[in-house]
Amino acid sequence: MTAFKHALPASNDILTREPLPASQKTYIPGDIHPDIRVPMRAIQLTNGETVTVYDTSGPYTDPTIEIDVAQGIPAIRKPWIDARQDTEAYDGRIIDPKDNGYTNRSQMETAIAGASSLMRQPLRAKTGQNVTQLHYARQGIITPEMEFIAIRENQRRELTRRYLNDAEREHRLKGEHFGANLPEDITPEFVRDEVAAGRAVIPCNINHPESEPMIIGRNFLVKVNANIGNSATTSSIAEEVEKMVWSTRWGADTVMDLSTGKNIHTTRDWILRNSPVPIGTVPIYQALEKVNGVAEDLTWEIFRDTLIEQAEQGVDYFTIHAGVLLRYVPMTTKRVTGIVSRGGSIMAKWCIAHHQESFLYTHFEDICEIMKQYDVSFSLGDGLRPGSLADANDEAQLAELETLGELTKIAWKHDVQVIIEGPGHVPMHMIKENMDKQLEYCHEAPFYTLGPLTTDIAPGYDHITSGIGAAMIGWFGTAMLCYVTPKEHLGLPNRDDVKEGLITYKLAAHAADVAKGHPGARARDDALSKARFEFRWEDQFNLGLDPEKARAFHDETLPRDSAKVAHFCSMCGPKFCSMKISQEVRDYAEQQGLSHQKAVEQGMAEMSQTFKENGSEVYVNVEDITLSS
Amino acid sequence: MTAFKHALPASNDILTREPLPASQKTYIPGDIHPDIRVPMRAIQLTNGETVTVYDTSGPYTDPTIEIDVAQGIPAIRKPWIDARQDTEAYDGRIIDPKDNGYTNRSQMETAIAGASSLMRQPLRAKTGQNVTQLHYARQGIITPEMEFIAIRENQRRELTRRYLNDAEREHRLKGEHFGANLPEDITPEFVRDEVAAGRAVIPCNINHPESEPMIIGRNFLVKVNANIGNSATTSSIAEEVEKMVWSTRWGADTVMDLSTGKNIHTTRDWILRNSPVPIGTVPIYQALEKVNGVAEDLTWEIFRDTLIEQAEQGVDYFTIHAGVLLRYVPMTTKRVTGIVSRGGSIMAKWCIAHHQESFLYTHFEDICEIMKQYDVSFSLGDGLRPGSLADANDEAQLAELETLGELTKIAWKHDVQVIIEGPGHVPMHMIKENMDKQLEYCHEAPFYTLGPLTTDIAPGYDHITSGIGAAMIGWFGTAMLCYVTPKEHLGLPNRDDVKEGLITYKLAAHAADVAKGHPGARARDDALSKARFEFRWEDQFNLGLDPEKARAFHDETLPRDSAKVAHFCSMCGPKFCSMKISQEVRDYAEQQGLSHQKAVEQGMAEMSQTFKENGSEVYVNVEDITLSS
Repeated sequence: MTAFKHALPASNDILTREPLPASQKTYIPGDIHPDIRVPMRAIQLTNGETVTVYDTSGPYTDPTIEIDVAQGIPAIRKPWIDARQDTEAYDGRIIDPKDNGYTNRSQMETAIAGASSLMRQPLRAKTGQNVTQLHYARQGIITPEMEFIAIRENQRRELTRRYLNDAEREHRLKGEHFGANLPEDITPEFVRDEVAAGRAVIPCNINHPESEPMIIGRNFLVKVNANIGNSATTSSIAEEVEKMVWSTRWGADTVMDLSTGKNIHTTRDWILRNSPVPIGTVPIYQALEKVNGVAEDLTWEIFRDTLIEQAEQGVDYFTIHAGVLLRYVPMTTKRVTGIVSRGGSIMAKWCIAHHQESFLYTHFEDICEIMKQYDVSFSLGDGLRPGSLADANDEAQLAELETLGELTKIAWKHDVQVIIEGPGHVPMHMIKENMDKQLEYCHEAPFYTLGPLTTDIAPGYDHITSGIGAAMIGWFGTAMLCYVTPKEHLGLPNRDDVKEGLITYKLAAHAADVAKGHPGARARDDALSKARFEFRWEDQFNLGLDPEKARAFHDETLPRDSAKVAHFCSMCGPKFCSMKISQEVRDYAEQQGLSHQKAVEQGMAEMSQTFKENGSEVYVNVEDITLSS
Repeated sequence: MTAFKHALPASNDILTREPLPASQKTYIPGDIHPDIRVPMRAIQLTNGETVTVYDTSGPYTDPTIEIDVAQGIPAIRKPWIDARQDTEAYDGRIIDPKDNGYTNRSQMETAIAGASSLMRQPLRAKTGQNVTQLHYARQGIITPEMEFIAIRENQRRELTRRYLNDAEREHRLKGEHFGANLPEDITPEFVRDEVAAGRAVIPCNINHPESEPMIIGRNFLVKVNANIGNSATTSSIAEEVEKMVWSTRWGADTVMDLSTGKNIHTTRDWILRNSPVPIGTVPIYQALEKVNGVAEDLTWEIFRDTLIEQAEQGVDYFTIHAGVLLRYVPMTTKRVTGIVSRGGSIMAKWCIAHHQESFLYTHFEDICEIMKQYDVSFSLGDGLRPGSLADANDEAQLAELETLGELTKIAWKHDVQVIIEGPGHVPMHMIKENMDKQLEYCHEAPFYTLGPLTTDIAPGYDHITSGIGAAMIGWFGTAMLCYVTPKEHLGLPNRDDVKEGLITYKLAAHAADVAKGHPGARARDDALSKARFEFRWEDQFNLGLDPEKARAFHDETLPRDSAKVAHFCSMCGPKFCSMKISQEVRDYAEQQGLSHQKAVEQGMAEMSQTFKENGSEVYVNVEDITLSS
């Protein structure tokens, strides 16, 4: 792994580029569109089998691809976009010093000096054209993006079906999908139809051709978003890019860039040109910077200009808090925690100060006109989401949700894609109501929730309090989960916190997929459990979400290599192992060719005899292995 | 805190004895039994309020009590037991070298030399008497244990009701209890009636008078168990006791001692004499040691002797895998992970080898006769629990559960208390079925589950995969959750893992209490959220389950003391804070004396004017505070 690194400029050394253990990037070609190459991660097991899993990490884990952050990663979607012939390159908006938080051009020139190689001429829809995937889908077109997604979602299920070949078991374990539609195989047509119905969204700005298409919808795998932000002490492109790379390594399906302060425009260029996943932003944050933090000074013109600025850079979805209406604000005054959404409180203050509805609401159709020129998706923000259990599912939250449903209809009129953001803090028994109301009010537009946190009493552990809620709401139908790190409410997440938050949310999303009965989802569980039962330790580590931690934990107690093939673990120790006995029972039954029923009826006597003859040591033979503590 | 420590022998220095931050032990006297003193933890807030929470930590967090592990903690229940006049002291079983894993008496003498001060003459029921709490309850007696529990479960709700005084909110948030019966106040009569019905268990061996009574039942607060085991390199009583102390500090309601190997008898003495919480064991582990690990050599006589040995020491509940029947064993051969319970596989191997039902099953009534002489509760073990999602809710698991239900009836016939152990690994959509079947098959005897883990793919994070399932099954009606640490499947938990597992399970249990609508449960959430909204950072830390971690996380980004009173946090930074604006909106409404409805109808215009007049800075004034990175 180090070989190719040294060949690159020093600034790229900071990127994490090692493939995960025992993993190899493989690419599956398209059928309708033969030039597409869908990346997957093939995990090689010690028994010769291969398990293929969804891979969000882009080219960074492919050692054959050279990456220079100053140039950006390959623009895989460019030929597809060009081939549609409905876009045009144009000069674009001139960068303003304020975009980066400066007051004069020379300051700005210094700031962007290192990023000029990442600035691209923007594309937009030709006059009269609409370039959204929703628009194409409604025309019956299967885009390369759609076929890419169909292949990607299937995860080469043909390779893992062997783990799911027991009819009794599959019958017993079939999921509860709460009305989701989960076909055995995802076809490009299915992707198209889901997008056309508004039930799924493909966030893919035409100015972000580097992104590997992915889909957000409750009839697909549950996705996870990670939030990142710029550092106060940013020193290089590579450091900012590494945050995104690190997130996608651990499974982030999309990344939201919530940077504030200086250099956010330029940082966004760095991230977008190097990101294989869709990037979301909250444009009101940057707009607020441009008016020096004075919410009341925000205007439609400044906001509009910011939308165009970010759309030209390639942001794939915008969180827009257009549902915070003037009449909803007083509904929050009796709350325990008032308004906790930053965007929500900016707009609430604006509404009160001006005593009128926000420009996000009054100019909503104007916003749609911009979105459809670039295929930016709406993520309609829940500005009035509850910030505590006490405020869950209250009047303010549900009133806003209804408004988001109305806005969804307007966006769809323009063929603009929409996802809906959701809470927040919700006790377990009220989570289902959130999902049901969202489906009802928002016409099945995909739901994208933060958590929800199921209790408020564990600061420092809110990845877990929220991971519980996330798994449940994902099961009920939420399409994408916004991760929460252990630092939530307390501080800025570091690298370890980001990883901890992501793994927590990946396991929650996966638990949801399994519970929904997503075809094939459980195959990875079964592969890992089989490895566990057969004491294939390496496979058990490598099939997990975090092979490094699993291995490290194992080695704390049993560090020697010989323990990696030991038929026991430190839980029971070498003296006695339940899995071992269990294997003996099974082996006996199989040797005798006993059917399951036969074994029940008549096999036990013989089994008993064999055990008596073949020795009765519960102790497992151990050579050269001792517990380290 | 250090003052009293230095006054004690050095061996006690290892004990963690500092009270949690801002916390003071308070004791509430009884009414029926005025001599009982129910311990609680009073958290002193910076605004003068006090929040009282359930406290499992015993005398260790009371700096006024001197503790010497060589003498044990005060036997608070001794007068209550004596007053009943239904027990007698007797010489008890003579300790055998094999109890500690030795072959001759001199080895053993050395081993127990340091613990002789902890050996007590055992009590047992007088001939013809039955000393179980179930027996007393059925006679209509309210024991001191029952009144203690009633006071303890109420957690001084009168102090926290102020957080729950909004009728609209309480109506909106009322829980879903799935048939649980959750009275507004727990009375001693209610405790008695629940115990009498078998719906709740008070594990309290008459030979463990040091324990502070607690209850396990779905109409009470959800409880958490922590497992501990002896170290291979045990060096002192205090080190073994500290594991238990550490567990109860972080909320363990009971502790299971799963020690194996040498010195387990003596270690058990150390733990029991110093434990303020009930102690559970799996006696078959020790019995197996006595036959050198050869499962087939186990006999009823050896097992019976082990039960008496441990009952005389004071173990409060025994896990007994009496439901592993011969005909169920072949049902496990087609499983992905066979039998994963240690006790289950020991008994399965025994049954197969002898081709007959186990002595646990055939001698079940004999076991009941022993249990009722000491008031040891059954924890009927789920020897056939699933070890992977693939095996969840299968024939073997459910067949055993039915048998456990039959055994429950037999135990109840003897007035012996029973809890039922449950899985394991179960996908989310099958968790409810577990709970429903358990209630049905086992006649509402309390359920005690391990997790369940909702996915198999995250070794290293199984406290979280199982915390999700634990929160859900706790909500559905499970009375006690057995914790899982991050090391599950991989290695032996260290001190940090034990804490991480416990906090995860305490938050899961609490999320369950809130979702069930347990009266008063949400008060702590509301108190913490109110502190958060009012930027009372110290209170936010101290009301949390882990004040130390919350504070440390906060200080990573904002270490200065001045940041502890700052009206912002590092999430949004000093530039902009949603909570601050939200407070402004509310303050305005309150200043004007506007009712909620008035504010909605007519207040907005005035509010708008005030914001215009009083300045419009979204920036929060910050003096001398900077982000550290």
